[in-house]
Amino acid sequence: MAQASYSPGLEGVIATTTSISYLDTEHEQIVLRGYDLIELARTKRYTEVAYLTLYGHLPSAAELAGFEGQLREHAELPGEVYRLLDLLPRRMHVMDAQRTVLSFLAGLEDPESLKDTSVEANLRRGVRVLAQMPAVTANAYRALRGLPRVRPDPSLGFSEGFLYMLLGSRPDPDAVRVFDLTLVCYIEHEMPNSTFAARVIASTLSDLYGAVVGAAASLKGPLHGGANEAVAHMLLDILRHGGADAAEAYVVERLRRGERIMGFGHRVYMRRYDPRALLMREFVPQLAARRPEGEELVRIHQTVERVMHREKGLYPNADYPAGLIYYLLGIPIELYTPIFLVSRTAGLVAHVVEQHAHNRLFRPRVLYEGPRGLRP
Amino acid sequence: MAQASYSPGLEGVIATTTSISYLDTEHEQIVLRGYDLIELARTKRYTEVAYLTLYGHLPSAAELAGFEGQLREHAELPGEVYRLLDLLPRRMHVMDAQRTVLSFLAGLEDPESLKDTSVEANLRRGVRVLAQMPAVTANAYRALRGLPRVRPDPSLGFSEGFLYMLLGSRPDPDAVRVFDLTLVCYIEHEMPNSTFAARVIASTLSDLYGAVVGAAASLKGPLHGGANEAVAHMLLDILRHGGADAAEAYVVERLRRGERIMGFGHRVYMRRYDPRALLMREFVPQLAARRPEGEELVRIHQTVERVMHREKGLYPNADYPAGLIYYLLGIPIELYTPIFLVSRTAGLVAHVVEQHAHNRLFRPRVLYEGPRGLRP
Repeated sequence: MAQASYSPGLEGVIATTTSISYLDTEHEQIVLRGYDLIELARTKRYTEVAYLTLYGHLPSAAELAGFEGQLREHAELPGEVYRLLDLLPRRMHVMDAQRTVLSFLAGLEDPESLKDTSVEANLRRGVRVLAQMPAVTANAYRALRGLPRVRPDPSLGFSEGFLYMLLGSRPDPDAVRVFDLTLVCYIEHEMPNSTFAARVIASTLSDLYGAVVGAAASLKGPLHGGANEAVAHMLLDILRHGGADAAEAYVVERLRRGERIMGFGHRVYMRRYDPRALLMREFVPQLAARRPEGEELVRIHQTVERVMHREKGLYPNADYPAGLIYYLLGIPIELYTPIFLVSRTAGLVAHVVEQHAHNRLFRPRVLYEGPRGLRP
Repeated sequence: MAQASYSPGLEGVIATTTSISYLDTEHEQIVLRGYDLIELARTKRYTEVAYLTLYGHLPSAAELAGFEGQLREHAELPGEVYRLLDLLPRRMHVMDAQRTVLSFLAGLEDPESLKDTSVEANLRRGVRVLAQMPAVTANAYRALRGLPRVRPDPSLGFSEGFLYMLLGSRPDPDAVRVFDLTLVCYIEHEMPNSTFAARVIASTLSDLYGAVVGAAASLKGPLHGGANEAVAHMLLDILRHGGADAAEAYVVERLRRGERIMGFGHRVYMRRYDPRALLMREFVPQLAARRPEGEELVRIHQTVERVMHREKGLYPNADYPAGLIYYLLGIPIELYTPIFLVSRTAGLVAHVVEQHAHNRLFRPRVLYEGPRGLRP
């Protein structure tokens, strides 16, 4: 038993062994199943990297076809789920709607079969959940906003079909390419809070649905997944208050007031550039013309980055370009964190599989600072 | 940064400071806000201990009346929740139903007000959730089993009203007294997996609903809350296969096959008697006559305990007597873990309040054991 010195937030504490991914800060590399995530993002599409994440090796052509076939086959939601979506309070946060549906999905599986936490059962279950996530996410949003339902189109690939449901119209190939790349960037990232929450929950031998529900709850938090939405809101706020010329003063003033600028810094990367942010940034200029305010937003984005580096020595993390890219693609802002969760589902499933296969219940201790010896 | 040696399951690792509760294994005491939980259970009722857990001091008569008034006022569920219950797949696990409803409840609060994570807002929200939990739990079960809805009866106290809804009929005072005592025993217990899951999630500044949803997902696991149901199932299994005379052989045979007997041992107590189990055990004999098979089940319960101590040196934990007590009270077995969650909601709310008030994002690291240097 390691009676450790106390490290708030478990900073620097090893929580588990894993063969899934690792942030190698020394070589500035995100390692996923042995590969450099950025190289994967440049050369592979989301479904290939999802297969790698889940099964531990890149798929052959036949394996990929089989996997994409499964994702297509399970993409449609059962009727009960649409009835649940119709019941959601209209003002509900999309993350909360997504989480509620995920929790509900557990009820569609036989409770006895749900107790099977073998690798095979978890992967089967996980692929089905991943397949359903795009329709869950797009239709949760649409139900909340009073928009008509969009059914999954089996003629489209995973990312194309997802973007189609998000937008309600057929996306062009350039949009699909960049969107798919952002999904690869978000797929897996060692042990962020949401993945940790999923593993903590799974360690009671609770099932995959519960673990993913816990991750969804975590990802909603503004210190975690919520950051990509905060970035878009900030860029638009600067646009409304003077545009690119006012961006520098805006950042300086917010920092002076002790406010946080979202999308910068990362506990593990510390003061380096998140490699995913560096990659995604490349694709920003080609998207600028897609919206009337696009060019101005890109200038604001560049200015804020420059000022943050000068003032605080901080570099962007993945949420910083992702928030802008999704906006330029015409995706409603409240969907950015839910999209993150859809992509991350592959990573979460892999972690639940691994946790159940080599389980040890998470049960830490505390440093008690309250009173003692009181009598009722 | 403490680059700690790796302790699987974070065993012995300090995860946080807290002023809520502490397992003092040296003095075999469960400390809750400075008091001995067992002394509280002997002298106070659940609502008093819930007030202490939430607000840090025992209530005055006026404070208690105000608190119980709030619990009564918020006990009824909004109409949407009953419609959701009607939609749940009939075969769903009660824990999954409870978790889905908790997730849904987030949508009934204004999303802007939900961002308020101040102590006051969290306590207000938490008291409302605690007030709703009995009706959520009883009616989730009833909806799944096709039983008619039971509305909260505002003339009854918290535990009496809860037991009334669970049974569908008015409980006698002896039953209420023992049931209330089990709720006190379950209210709070330092940093079990579910509380840890809630704090991990809350540390992203995600809201109280998400944190409690994560705890519900954790508690479902057979290595955690699921144990009290497993105890009841085992006792009935022995009853059907030879009764008390066959209990010794049953346990020995299961241990020989390497199977786990639930309700024994605890990572923190190690090889000591859980003080809650010791207290609850006192109340078992007086309940035995409540069911025809009661006396036989009590004998089986005693035999299994004796054999487990002789064979494995293990003592019962709280789930061991709780599983039997709930059965003798006539409560359906699938409700035992959901009842645990209802009681624990007070502890979880206190932890979310504390986490948000002194926040540090949980973000540990890993020991990567996978491949390196692969090229796509």
